[in-house]
Amino acid sequence: MTYKAFTEQDAIDRVRTLGLIGDGAVEAEEIGDGNLNLVFRIREGEHRLILKQALPYAKVVGESWPLSLERAWIEQSALREFARHAVPFVPRVFHASHEEAYTVMEDLSHLTIVRSGLLAGEQYPLLAEHIGSYLARTLFHTSDFALGPVEKKRVARTYYNPDLCDITEKLIFTDPFHDAETNEIEAGLEEEVARLWADDELKREVAKLEALFITKGDALLHGDLHTGSIFASATETKVIDPEFAFYGPFGFDVGQFIAHLFFAAYPDYSALRDARIRDIDTFWLTFASTFRALWEREAVEPFQASGLVDDVLSTILQDALGFAGCELIRRTIGLAPVADLESIDSTTERLERKRHALRLGAALIKRRTECRTFDDLRNFDVTEELSR
Amino acid sequence: MTYKAFTEQDAIDRVRTLGLIGDGAVEAEEIGDGNLNLVFRIREGEHRLILKQALPYAKVVGESWPLSLERAWIEQSALREFARHAVPFVPRVFHASHEEAYTVMEDLSHLTIVRSGLLAGEQYPLLAEHIGSYLARTLFHTSDFALGPVEKKRVARTYYNPDLCDITEKLIFTDPFHDAETNEIEAGLEEEVARLWADDELKREVAKLEALFITKGDALLHGDLHTGSIFASATETKVIDPEFAFYGPFGFDVGQFIAHLFFAAYPDYSALRDARIRDIDTFWLTFASTFRALWEREAVEPFQASGLVDDVLSTILQDALGFAGCELIRRTIGLAPVADLESIDSTTERLERKRHALRLGAALIKRRTECRTFDDLRNFDVTEELSR
Repeated sequence: MTYKAFTEQDAIDRVRTLGLIGDGAVEAEEIGDGNLNLVFRIREGEHRLILKQALPYAKVVGESWPLSLERAWIEQSALREFARHAVPFVPRVFHASHEEAYTVMEDLSHLTIVRSGLLAGEQYPLLAEHIGSYLARTLFHTSDFALGPVEKKRVARTYYNPDLCDITEKLIFTDPFHDAETNEIEAGLEEEVARLWADDELKREVAKLEALFITKGDALLHGDLHTGSIFASATETKVIDPEFAFYGPFGFDVGQFIAHLFFAAYPDYSALRDARIRDIDTFWLTFASTFRALWEREAVEPFQASGLVDDVLSTILQDALGFAGCELIRRTIGLAPVADLESIDSTTERLERKRHALRLGAALIKRRTECRTFDDLRNFDVTEELSR
Repeated sequence: MTYKAFTEQDAIDRVRTLGLIGDGAVEAEEIGDGNLNLVFRIREGEHRLILKQALPYAKVVGESWPLSLERAWIEQSALREFARHAVPFVPRVFHASHEEAYTVMEDLSHLTIVRSGLLAGEQYPLLAEHIGSYLARTLFHTSDFALGPVEKKRVARTYYNPDLCDITEKLIFTDPFHDAETNEIEAGLEEEVARLWADDELKREVAKLEALFITKGDALLHGDLHTGSIFASATETKVIDPEFAFYGPFGFDVGQFIAHLFFAAYPDYSALRDARIRDIDTFWLTFASTFRALWEREAVEPFQASGLVDDVLSTILQDALGFAGCELIRRTIGLAPVADLESIDSTTERLERKRHALRLGAALIKRRTECRTFDDLRNFDVTEELSR
């Protein structure tokens, strides 16, 4: 079976041949944004499935560049791996085809995408705790410290993902820090951005974070863990779309999620700030306590060494704050803007929040090593950055 | 062609079929130690070649365990890769067979193995400088900073070497730090060793170094760079046997070489100490200045960031001192003792030097982060450790 992009009928034929639906009346609808993937929702009465197929290119703002179909296989491998360790938080995979680059999985339309939900005023009281637990379990259990180095090397071979890592390297660590074509800088931010680009200390610290991203293979990362990659309700949380999955540093996913909780406060900063800071707090406390408990119970010798997990957690926190800083900056002036900022109607307020995001990002990057524990971050009042 | 262990006649047949020798009288002699590999020296008059073939097991002190033949392919790939960047210091490879797990390469019998030569009183005035240059070139040029992350990921895939990494992890980082069967502890050292094993700080720092070894993929390492892996004369230096090659942290090879320069002083400590410390000094200065020059000239954007290479070099130094400490300890009480210590006739002196090596090792591991520059190491008088 050689690859071709599916029609709705192709999608129905595949799930029918696989016996995943019956012989009744079936309808299929393509619901993706068509930039990277086709996403078909297939219904047979109350029974619903998702068939997601990778496209051999990425389309962003009219541009198109070739992208390996291999990422579909990586995505389904990662979904299955994550489900092994954090089953409540991962959509169920029913079937995947390597050749045709598609995966059939659980439909989640009873949930909402967290970014849209938060913008619409939804509450997700368990979100921070769930993602803390999800990340502690997936990161610990795919690491050398749980698997042992021989098994980890074997698992890591599946996640050879240079194309998608390259996108991250360019869009998060490189382009936002110089005058690159991909940037989208709103009129009125030029002066603020010029200050960033002239900041040699910032650029050195970002280069260190990029070096960490490309050289450190701690654990299998989701690789793109923003609030648009999470479906949730008041009681349920599911993390989707790990096509950027690869072996990278523990702090990366943690930092991306923290950045997007900060973003979630911007639509109504004075009203939402405290709630989102509490979410970050809950997220980190859940992550750190779960990670520590797993480590103490299950880390292979000799990583049970007294005090080692404290050191690992304090490194994760510092790295995560740095990665969060990069994400705050790139989503404010880089290629993929966030609705949390773009949906602010008042130009004055929008520019003010964007300036805040840039300064918060730079402060997190440059001052991350001041944080040995999360209490240090609590005392690290980034709002003061605005008056510097 | 399926694998079988060669006879001398098989070795001759292969090089003849390959056209690497003529039709004249040829003799072959197996000169390996037979523990891991067969090594045939093949002569046709003045023309000499080496054919090295991997055995499917490792034999150490009578024990035998299975070992992947894949390491032969990794070794020849690494020799060719290193030759691309540091040709004067790498034996020439004429042919390699993946299936039959052998490599035909340059014979180096006009040189001596450095460990044996130093023990016999030979001088290698260019050794430290040559190895400094060799490591700066091979480490920099196989890193993300020279290749860019996409090409580096492609190159790194060849060096999937879990079996041999596992040997290093066990023998360097794990076994010497608890009462493992593989240890060889000379009578009289028990008290000193008990102190090591009771030192929780030491064990935590060793676990951190092991974590670095298994998670950080900075560059293609030799992986076993001791003075028994180097052929030299007064003017020439060749690094052989990279079958442990894998993508690991910059500091590992650097640290192993430093450890074995320390060992080289032990046969006659008062007479040799200053010369070997000068060698370590020359080695580091050559390494650091060459690495810095390559980085400044050739590092890909954005790693030209001002001050970044200083930070990278200071991390390499600290990590290298830690790895050197582990190597000093494992070669003193672990599975693979060094002639530099074992050849000391007087039991009193031998035990004294072994105690020194253990304390020096522990000091390097625990105090490595005090060294920001090599001057800090010069001022870090480890001999005082003996009186603590």
